[in-house]
Order: sequence, then structure tokens, then C-alpha cells
Amino acid sequence: MKVIIIGGVAGGMSAATRLRRLMEKAEIIVLEKGPVVSFANCGLPYYVSGEIAEREQLVVQTPEALKNRFNIDVRPFHEVIAISPESHTVTIRTNGQEQTESYDKLILSPGAKPFVPTIEGLHEASNIYSLRSIPDVDQIMAGITSQTKHAVVIGAGFIGLEMAENLRKRGLEVTIVEKAPQVLPSLDEEMAAFVEAELRKQGVTVITAQSAVRFEEVGKKIILENGQELISDLTLLSVGVAPENHLALEAGLDTGLRGGILVNEHYQTSHPDIYAVGDAIVVRQQITDTEALISLASPANRQGRQVADVIAGLDRKNQGSIGTAIVRVFDVTAATTGLSERTAKLAQLPVSVVHITGKDHAGYFPGATDITLKLIFNAETGEIYGAQGIGAKGVDKRIDILATAIKGKLTIFDLPELELTYAPPFGSAKDPVNMLGYAAMNLAEGLSESIQWYELETELANGKVLLDVRTDEELTRGKFKEAYHLPLNDLRQNITQLDADKEYIVSCHSGLRSYIAERILKQANIQVKNLDGAFALYQMVRPEAIVYV
Amino acid sequence: MKVIIIGGVAGGMSAATRLRRLMEKAEIIVLEKGPVVSFANCGLPYYVSGEIAEREQLVVQTPEALKNRFNIDVRPFHEVIAISPESHTVTIRTNGQEQTESYDKLILSPGAKPFVPTIEGLHEASNIYSLRSIPDVDQIMAGITSQTKHAVVIGAGFIGLEMAENLRKRGLEVTIVEKAPQVLPSLDEEMAAFVEAELRKQGVTVITAQSAVRFEEVGKKIILENGQELISDLTLLSVGVAPENHLALEAGLDTGLRGGILVNEHYQTSHPDIYAVGDAIVVRQQITDTEALISLASPANRQGRQVADVIAGLDRKNQGSIGTAIVRVFDVTAATTGLSERTAKLAQLPVSVVHITGKDHAGYFPGATDITLKLIFNAETGEIYGAQGIGAKGVDKRIDILATAIKGKLTIFDLPELELTYAPPFGSAKDPVNMLGYAAMNLAEGLSESIQWYELETELANGKVLLDVRTDEELTRGKFKEAYHLPLNDLRQNITQLDADKEYIVSCHSGLRSYIAERILKQANIQVKNLDGAFALYQMVRPEAIVYV
Repeated sequence: MKVIIIGGVAGGMSAATRLRRLMEKAEIIVLEKGPVVSFANCGLPYYVSGEIAEREQLVVQTPEALKNRFNIDVRPFHEVIAISPESHTVTIRTNGQEQTESYDKLILSPGAKPFVPTIEGLHEASNIYSLRSIPDVDQIMAGITSQTKHAVVIGAGFIGLEMAENLRKRGLEVTIVEKAPQVLPSLDEEMAAFVEAELRKQGVTVITAQSAVRFEEVGKKIILENGQELISDLTLLSVGVAPENHLALEAGLDTGLRGGILVNEHYQTSHPDIYAVGDAIVVRQQITDTEALISLASPANRQGRQVADVIAGLDRKNQGSIGTAIVRVFDVTAATTGLSERTAKLAQLPVSVVHITGKDHAGYFPGATDITLKLIFNAETGEIYGAQGIGAKGVDKRIDILATAIKGKLTIFDLPELELTYAPPFGSAKDPVNMLGYAAMNLAEGLSESIQWYELETELANGKVLLDVRTDEELTRGKFKEAYHLPLNDLRQNITQLDADKEYIVSCHSGLRSYIAERILKQANIQVKNLDGAFALYQMVRPEAIVYV
Repeated sequence: MKVIIIGGVAGGMSAATRLRRLMEKAEIIVLEKGPVVSFANCGLPYYVSGEIAEREQLVVQTPEALKNRFNIDVRPFHEVIAISPESHTVTIRTNGQEQTESYDKLILSPGAKPFVPTIEGLHEASNIYSLRSIPDVDQIMAGITSQTKHAVVIGAGFIGLEMAENLRKRGLEVTIVEKAPQVLPSLDEEMAAFVEAELRKQGVTVITAQSAVRFEEVGKKIILENGQELISDLTLLSVGVAPENHLALEAGLDTGLRGGILVNEHYQTSHPDIYAVGDAIVVRQQITDTEALISLASPANRQGRQVADVIAGLDRKNQGSIGTAIVRVFDVTAATTGLSERTAKLAQLPVSVVHITGKDHAGYFPGATDITLKLIFNAETGEIYGAQGIGAKGVDKRIDILATAIKGKLTIFDLPELELTYAPPFGSAKDPVNMLGYAAMNLAEGLSESIQWYELETELANGKVLLDVRTDEELTRGKFKEAYHLPLNDLRQNITQLDADKEYIVSCHSGLRSYIAERILKQANIQVKNLDGAFALYQMVRPEAIVYV
């Protein structure tokens, strides 16, 4: 059997090596239009700052090594310019020449291409880059000289933020421009607020709810919607990606959602001898059971392996994806799995939400830091729709646990049952993930009722009273504009101060004490709800609503 | 309702605080025989070295704080000396006086006590300690003077190893004596071998398969079975724990396995108004569905909360435990969840095993370190029985993911489907947990056959040939005594060198290349099996079988 694979990164290379292990006698050819195969695309931003010091570290495998170990015929600088499904051939351009190669099975792993918006002056600009490949990063590195002072990153998604961090660490003045009202739009607003705060703390200028509308002076000047002008020596466009589908389209293969290549559960396109994997294909979002485009390395690698299994005759199906992603932004980690509150609501799911703050490891052991976790779930069935986390350390672990819980169809009622590793350097007897389960159960079982941060203003306007149960000392570090104050430890003795005809919203710093206060008031027949996430979260997402006295 | 709780740590204190949140009007009394409640028992060893610097950090809550916040009546130095189930009273000794207190519901959370073996001279010895409470650690600290040079730790379980580390960091010469043939008997031998190597590297003397048979010179001299004499200025006895059951026994409550208190799924003892939680009770091992004693903080805390739910009338059941534990031993972390290979075989389960070595995060990103993972599973059904991990970093995360997978009844076929957080600082596109699933599937689907390290000697004696596919350069770092050498990259061209009538065992360094070699040979119709874990694992557990040239 002769198998041609188009695209030599992630999915393509996983397919090639797995196929060799399964089919020693197959002829396997990998055609890569770029100079390098099997490179660490997720590592590219870190080469800009020098955190990854050597360019060669980005190259995981060479064609020679792949030939020696796997007997795979890897051909860089071989761009496929046409596929002929009927004749089972591809047309390749290399060194300015065209050639034809036949195949029995063809695997498309073309990836996604950076989306390039239509902006006036874009084509005249000489300092605009995108980041997808090693040649891209080579160009960026060449574009950074001793004269380069100001960098502008357009688009505050994962790659945009990684580039902002690494350009800043490289010593540049960095401005991020994001069209959405928040950075990191795949996270919910209040969680992304922690990331925005960290960016500002590290000296990055963050402009949200703005687009670039014009480049002037060959790109040295960027004009925003509101007329603001930014100076830029180097501009990175990272406003999203789109499936690299032109070969598939021209070959007449079916495409779907936003141009993604359509495949069946065996990765077969509309032509049975052509398969496709990776960022270019439409997949099934497992939680909503709807179509989705997911541009992540982990699913691409899995799909590459699985398509090899399929071609080799093993029983393997694409089960879909839930989507798990993480980003380090200076000293903060942000991660998400499954649906956000926003996407869950868009999918018209019955959404409940809970936030908790815990420590990455036992608070009594040195070095413990805060983790804020958010759970998006169905309070009726307990189904977990998604989770997000923010913190300095240990966020990856908690989101991985929750991603595994979702895959295992565990519910909120199961989270307290998780027996996680506990010794003081690693965790707590009640891990933040356990706590998340307890908090969600308290809502599901009616022991607690909560409102979200975006509901507070309306609730207060409707006559409810905000009761802040923090200590006097804590108030000196910022307080709600409008709140009644009664420290938790004084609540029982002073409960008669409260007006039984009023409805209360309780808050403390992180939500632990306000829940205790809520239980005390509820059992005294006072109407009360808990401000989920409490002061710490509210302060982050609504800093303008906090007063310092 | 008046609830008395015996024991003010972990389960007891979780029960008390949850009960208050559910039942504002209940009278809640916590009776603790020691001076301190709610202390960080898992933190005690780290106070010995000073890593936890202040004694007060070990005290999570004081009686005053618990009174102020939870209106709980916490009474330290109140030892319950008798329970009268019929009259619903307990007899308390405090300040040399006896008093009686009535209850409606009684919760026993007495914990486990250090097992004290019968050793000649033990009672005459003046330098022997165990570690369970703050008074214990106070005594140890008082026992360490400028004259204290030699410490002996008897028992190399979790607490023994933590104490060995912290005594060593305190500057003492430390010797560990363990009756089993390995340290950390809850791990399998080859995984524990990594821990033993780390202990030796850090200057700890490790003596396995030996017991202390006699203390001489008021404990300054310890005589082992083989006649060896150890000098000790300070001896820690940590040879296991037993349920603290004397009150339960004297009250006529039913006990079971090794004296553990028997409770139903609502934590009720044989007397319906007496409940019990924590290390003292018999629980259900969820994987084997058999009775077990599990002395861990995490289940104890959960049980404490759940028994409060039960007493408050919520629908809550003890679902049992799988057992997850972790220990930091200097620069190495060792963790386990579920069954070990040994316990799974003792339970007569159809056990398959796979070891893999991966990196805690992307190998191309600075600071990546090795993780060795072991999976114990059923190759027929894919059921996961247990997992173990060793490494410098990220072991806690992988074992937590696998513990969650077990709770979610995910199989080996699901592990590759886990979508875990991946960015270069946190993981890899194929996480070691995914790799573990792939490797297990290769066995389950017959693509690979393996032997374990303890089978190699016999296989070679039976005429099989060990084929080492590492490079020439690697051999200089140690080699098998008896192996044919052919580097993987030369295998295809030199396959005719192999004798088709022989059966081969292939090995490389960590198992990745030997699996590729296995696939090449299998498809050339040569009989071959893979040495699971390969040279790296074998070298660790059978160092005497390695030659250095």
C-alpha cells in the first residue's frame, strides 16, 4: 500500500509513524510545503523571548531521523497544489518544478491558517507578522532589531497572549488590541479578568473592545475604531485561524462549518480513499453533540494516530472532543475544559455556575498559592459542562482532573468522591476540586442559593441589601460601594440588627465565610443569597465598583 | 439535638463544622483527649526539619476560633474513657476528674494508633518515638539535641520516609530499617526501587528485609535479625497503624477486619445512635469490592462531612474508597492509586501491566524531567485496577488524572481520549497518561507482547535472546550482562543477522524504541516480546544484573 500524507506536523506525523509500526511494508510519503517537519509549533512563541534558547530545539525530528528510524519518505519543500481523487494522484510543486505522485490512500493534515482580516493599509504594511511555522518565527526574529521598541499584538487569544508575554520578556513595549470586551475570549469574562490584571501588572497595555481599522506609514501607525493611534515597530496578527481547506475544496471534497473538511467517524472525507485529520476537519463537540472546529495539538495528534489505525484495519472511531486549553501568561496560568458559561448558554443548556478559591497545596505548607476554579454544570442532573481555572500553580492539574471527570461522565455529586493525592507539598485533604463539588452540591440540593457577579447591580437596584461579613481590617483593603457590614464572627449575636423584611446578598472575601453566613441567616428565616465568588472575584471583574478608604 | 464528637481532627472536625452549617440549633460538643484540635497531622514531619518553620502553623483552628465562627463547644484535654450506648452518655476524664455527658447522636472519629511491635528492650528504651500528634512531635523535637547524631527509622512506609527525609534535612545520620524486601511496601517493588535509590543518593542508609529484634543500652543500640548492630540516638517507630478501637470494643460495638469499627453505608455502628468515621472504620475497597482499612486524610474528611449530612437527614452514602497516596522523598515524588500489581494479584484479578516513561512537560521546553508511570489493568475488559508514578515533578497530576479515571470507570481505551491541558510549560500533546493508554491498548489488541522485569532471568534461562536496540554510545552507560546488540536504526538492514528459530526479548532505554523494534520483528515473522520498562527500569530494580564497561 502507498500512503501519501499532506502536512508533516502533529496529525500528519503521528499518522506516518503509527502507520509504519502497523504496516512495515507500506510505502509512506510525507509531503510538507515548508522547510521543516515535526516541529514544535506550540513552542514557537517561547523562542522569541529566548526561553527556548536554540532554534534547533523547535525541530523534534528531521527527515533523516525519520528515514532511519521509521523508513518514512519525508519531503520538505514539497507543496501539493492539486489532488485528483479519480486518478488517485497529487500534483506537487518543488524547486519550481511540478511532479505527480500516485497514492492508494491519502491523508490530509493541512492544519489551520491564520485568519487575515481585511484592514486598510494591511498589504502596504511591512511590519506585520503571523505565527504558524518556523519560517514565520524566523521572520519575526529578523524583524526585531535594536530599533524595535513597540510591538502591537492584534487578537488576545492563546497565541496572542503567549506572544505578548514573550515579546515583553524580549524587552519590547507591548500593546494588545482585542475586539471582544475581554482578553482570552474562550474564557468567561470574570476569569479572563485575572489574566488582564496580570498583563497590566507586567507592563503590557491592554485595549479591549477595539479593532484596528487602518494601518498607516507602512504599518508604523495603527488606527483603532475609536480613532486612537498606536505606534508599532512590529505587529502580530493573531485574530484566529481558519481551516486550510483550499486543496480539499478544489478536489471537490465536502466541507462544512466555516469551511472545515467534513469526515465521517473513520476520518474519511467524501472521497473514500482520502482521509483528513487535525485543525482542518469538523469534529463533534462531545458535550453539546454539535459540530465544532477545534484547533489544538492534542486532538490532532490523537486523530493522526487513529487514522493510521483505520487505514491499517483496526477498529477505531473519532469520538469527538471536549476542548481543553491552557496558557501561561507571565506568573498566571489560565485553563479551560469543555464549555464556558457563555457557550453553554448559547447552546441553551440549563446552566448553573459556582466559583471557589482554594490553595494549590496545603495552606500550612510553605509556598501555597491561590487557585480560583469555576464550574459550569446542570444543577438538576449534576452533569458537568465545563470548568475554568486561574492561579499561579496547580491549575493544569485541576483542569486535567475535571477534563477527565467530564470524559468519565462524572457529575458534581462525584467530585467530592475523587480521592486525589494528598501530602502537604502537593494538595489538601479537601482538594479545590472536591470543594468545587461540595459547593455545586450545596446549590443543587438547595442548601445555598447564589447570584453571579453580573447580577449584583440589578439585585441591589431591586432593593436587596448587600451584607459584607469580612472583618473590619479587610475593609481597609477595598470595599463595595454600597454594603452593610457585619463580620461573620459577630453575626449570631447581632442577627436582630438585620431587617427580616429585606432580602440579603452576603459576601466575604472568597465565598467560604459568606456561605456560612448564608446558612446562619437561612436557618433564622431571613431571605438570603450568596454572592458567588464574593469580593475577590467582584473586585477583579468590576474594579470600578470598589472603593478604597 | 445534642451531638458529641469524639476526636477533633480530620473526620471529627469536618463533621462538626458541616453539622453546624446544616443545624444551626444543634448542640455540638467535640471531645479531644489531646491538647490540640484540628491540627495538620500530615504536616508534622516537616516541622522536624523546619520546612514548616512555626509550630503554630500546624494548628489550623483553635477552640476559640471554632466557638466564634461555628458555635462549636470544643474541649481539648477531655478524654472519653467510656461510652454507655444504652444511657446515651459518655464518661469523660479531664483534669483528673470524671464527668458524664449525654448525647442524642455520638460520632466516633478516634483515628488510628501507631502499631507498637513487641521488641525486646523496647520498654526500657528512652529514645523511641512514634508520630501521630503534636505532643509526639514536641517530644521528638525535645529529643533532638546537639548530641543527637544517629537516627533510626523503623518502617519505610509513608510516614517513615517523610520522617527519614526531614531528620536527614535536620542534619542527622539516618538509617531506615524495613521488614519488607523494599521500601514503601504499598508500591510495587520496581517503582519503590526509584525511591530507595533517591534515599541512598541523599545519604540515607537503607536496610530492607530486616527487623529490629532487640534494643540494648536503653535504646542506644538496636540489634537486627542478622545480628547487625545500629547505633541510635533517636528511633522512630513507624511500622503501621491500627484502628483506635478500645472505646468501641468496650461499648460493645461490632468490629471487623483487624479491629476496625464496622459501620453501614450511613456510617452507623451496630448501635444506631453511634456513628463512626475515619481511619478507625472498615470501608469498602471500591475496585475489589472487599473490606479494607484505609488510613488517609482525604477519605476521613469526606466521611466526616457525610456523617453530618446523614445526621441532618440528607441522603448520603459511603461509597467506599480506592486509596490514593503520595509521598515526597527528597527530590522524588512517588504516588499510587487503586491496587498495586501485588494486591491485584492477591485479589486474583487477571492482571496486565505496562510501564512508560515520559516527560512532565514538553521535552523541548526548559526544565522537563522524567516521569515513570505504571498501569495495572485488565487487558480483556480494559478496566483500570491501579496506577503508580515516580518522578521529580508532575507525578501528582498524573496519578490524580488516573484516580479520576478509575472513579469514572474509564478504561485503558479511554485514556488516549483524555484531552489534557497542553502548552509547553505544562504538558505534551501526548501526555504520559495518553501514552499509558496507547501502550496498554497495544497489549490488549495484540500489537505488542511484553514480559516484566522479574520474568527476564527465567526467559533467558529458557533460551530466549535479549536484543538490546540502544545505540553504541548508550551501552557505555551500562549494559545487560547477556544481550545481543543491534541499534534500532540498523535493525531493518541487519534483520537477517537474527535467528528466525530463536525467540527474542527486545529492550532499549525506556521502551519506546524497543516497541518499534518489536513491531519490525513481528512483521518479519520473528518471535519477539518487549521487556516492559526496558533497561531504565531493569537497571533500577536489578542493579546487580548490570555491567559497566
